[in-house]
Amino acid sequence: MNGFVRPQNVVLFSAAEPLQLESGKTIGPINVNYETYGTLSPERDNAIFICHALTGDAHVAGRRTAEDRKPGWWDGFIGPGRGIDTNKYFVICANVLGGCQGSTGPSTVDPETGKPYGPHFPFITIPDIVRVHKTLVDHLGIQKLLAVVGGSLGGMQVLEWAARYPEALGAAIILASGAKLNAQGIAFNAVGRRAIYADPAFCEGNYYSETEKPRFGLALARMIAHITYLSEQSIESKFGRRLQDRDALAYDLKQETEFQIESYLHYQGQRFVERFDANSYVLLTKAMDYFNLESTHGPLTEVLGKTDARFLVVSYDTDWLFPTGQSLEIVRALISARRHVTSVELPSPHGHDAFLIESELPKLGDIVVPFLARAQEDMRRPRG
Amino acid sequence: MNGFVRPQNVVLFSAAEPLQLESGKTIGPINVNYETYGTLSPERDNAIFICHALTGDAHVAGRRTAEDRKPGWWDGFIGPGRGIDTNKYFVICANVLGGCQGSTGPSTVDPETGKPYGPHFPFITIPDIVRVHKTLVDHLGIQKLLAVVGGSLGGMQVLEWAARYPEALGAAIILASGAKLNAQGIAFNAVGRRAIYADPAFCEGNYYSETEKPRFGLALARMIAHITYLSEQSIESKFGRRLQDRDALAYDLKQETEFQIESYLHYQGQRFVERFDANSYVLLTKAMDYFNLESTHGPLTEVLGKTDARFLVVSYDTDWLFPTGQSLEIVRALISARRHVTSVELPSPHGHDAFLIESELPKLGDIVVPFLARAQEDMRRPRG
Repeated sequence: MNGFVRPQNVVLFSAAEPLQLESGKTIGPINVNYETYGTLSPERDNAIFICHALTGDAHVAGRRTAEDRKPGWWDGFIGPGRGIDTNKYFVICANVLGGCQGSTGPSTVDPETGKPYGPHFPFITIPDIVRVHKTLVDHLGIQKLLAVVGGSLGGMQVLEWAARYPEALGAAIILASGAKLNAQGIAFNAVGRRAIYADPAFCEGNYYSETEKPRFGLALARMIAHITYLSEQSIESKFGRRLQDRDALAYDLKQETEFQIESYLHYQGQRFVERFDANSYVLLTKAMDYFNLESTHGPLTEVLGKTDARFLVVSYDTDWLFPTGQSLEIVRALISARRHVTSVELPSPHGHDAFLIESELPKLGDIVVPFLARAQEDMRRPRG
Repeated sequence: MNGFVRPQNVVLFSAAEPLQLESGKTIGPINVNYETYGTLSPERDNAIFICHALTGDAHVAGRRTAEDRKPGWWDGFIGPGRGIDTNKYFVICANVLGGCQGSTGPSTVDPETGKPYGPHFPFITIPDIVRVHKTLVDHLGIQKLLAVVGGSLGGMQVLEWAARYPEALGAAIILASGAKLNAQGIAFNAVGRRAIYADPAFCEGNYYSETEKPRFGLALARMIAHITYLSEQSIESKFGRRLQDRDALAYDLKQETEFQIESYLHYQGQRFVERFDANSYVLLTKAMDYFNLESTHGPLTEVLGKTDARFLVVSYDTDWLFPTGQSLEIVRALISARRHVTSVELPSPHGHDAFLIESELPKLGDIVVPFLARAQEDMRRPRG
């Protein structure tokens, strides 16, 4: 590495040999946009796959150029000397199938029609996403990953990896996630999608050739979701009832960004529509709603009992989107199955976002460093 | 009473003598739609004023006709032999200023223009609402209320009553409320309003003469808010991940009501638009955001120290919209001010909605019955 990361692409599957999706449909070819960090060891036993969350992408760490304003989204956690040390480990991260950050998704041109898939993009699930990533890992010549790591929707992918490919990973790190989405999570995703559907510019998903994009709906969906990523206490201490750019109340309904929290949410919504596609948002939130490890693979204890991977399960005490109870469900199943599991509820004011915000060494990193070191020992000196 | 209640109306204020609003604007005349239950005692010392919440109305209890499908919204709590016993007490409830259930609001015809006020309806606040209600109570010839009672936005009105008219009430019952709305509450209200604003049929509030009303936006606002009224545990036990009217997943993005929770929220949204006005929703959520007893009246302890009213402050352990900490703030101020305060956090699976759902005798009623009896003793044998 010269210190910079570069996006890479590979085409997997094909029209002749497409991916068989859970829905019964097929798709192929599939472009996969991914990045790698560090160096793969000659023994190929130091590879860690990172699963990104709902609106993440392959650019997990580092900078692409010297001018890059911001590093990757998990740069505090991944890099030289970080919790996931790229001086030791070879890190891979890929944009998910159905996404809009380089991998094949609804905004991709359908080779059959020469137009973007749009609403004709097939329905996809977490298992579908993970099967594409496993195919990428195979393509990179890696038989067994040292670890698969992810938070939130990324954590769901980690569970799917462990269930579907129990021998393909030495360790699993699951942050702020669960073995299924609860009803409240489905409810918030549903109202977000409703915001998009109700935007006339959405045109039932056929908006790519239009000047007007469904930016109001997508921004609103993001604003709603963003509230669920913050804790009551973080939102209160960060914004409280403070006004934005004014000293006194306006008594004017037209002031949509009067309170700082309003201004902040509007800003988040506006920023989001610049980088994300409404069809991808609809598709991926639905994939999240559908996720239910037990309904796909059977009882948790049985499913998780099939892997020798070491598990690290982390929750955050102020996360109300994926409360600790959901992590405990995974932990209990692993204990019942007599598997290696380490679990911790970390204190944080940051709610669900804590897994992104508090990933620096003294927090999450301090747990992950020895956990990965031990997992690598296991890989190198196989048990039993 | 013949067993049925009937809506009553009174016109307060006038164009010549309008209500001076907090915003500096004025409004008059103001029609107030209200209902009463029970009989006012000759001493006029048994009157209880009920403050309704965001989307409530004057029809708090009983039936209007024998054919009425449903009784008033707090019928489990108010009526003959109930927690607030209409055999003993004279109960009054009025639709709020700015509402859409009979009192003057944005959908009312502005006598100056002959057209509905629409977006020209003046900005109103909780203090404005309470001043109209106080004028109604004066009009009814009641100098001192036995109690003022309300939950959520209704509880805010109770606090405003106590602060503004400290000698006009013998008791205050505040349920699932707070002395100000927290940032998370503002955030949810803001995204709800955004849903309405983004609906092209909203036409900046000028939709009364249009065929198309902003029903998508208003329904979505209600769906979002409805999630905040339920607890994670109630939504999980009531709906979980169960599907609506099907045995298997559809793998179809067009299925907007696939899960029961989705179907339920859509139903709530649809039902709501039949009875509520979008301009009123915008106006009243903003009034809620603005509510801050301290910024209007001064430090809580000083403000609440001015009244001899007995306080009952109730919160619910699963209410995350108005968590118990917000009730405790009121209770601490009352204790500091050496006032009479009884407070309790009730266990309930129902979240914020508990104040509406669990109002029957064995729950809330059991506390309220002796509390009101003691408050009436005080009224009849004034202290020192």
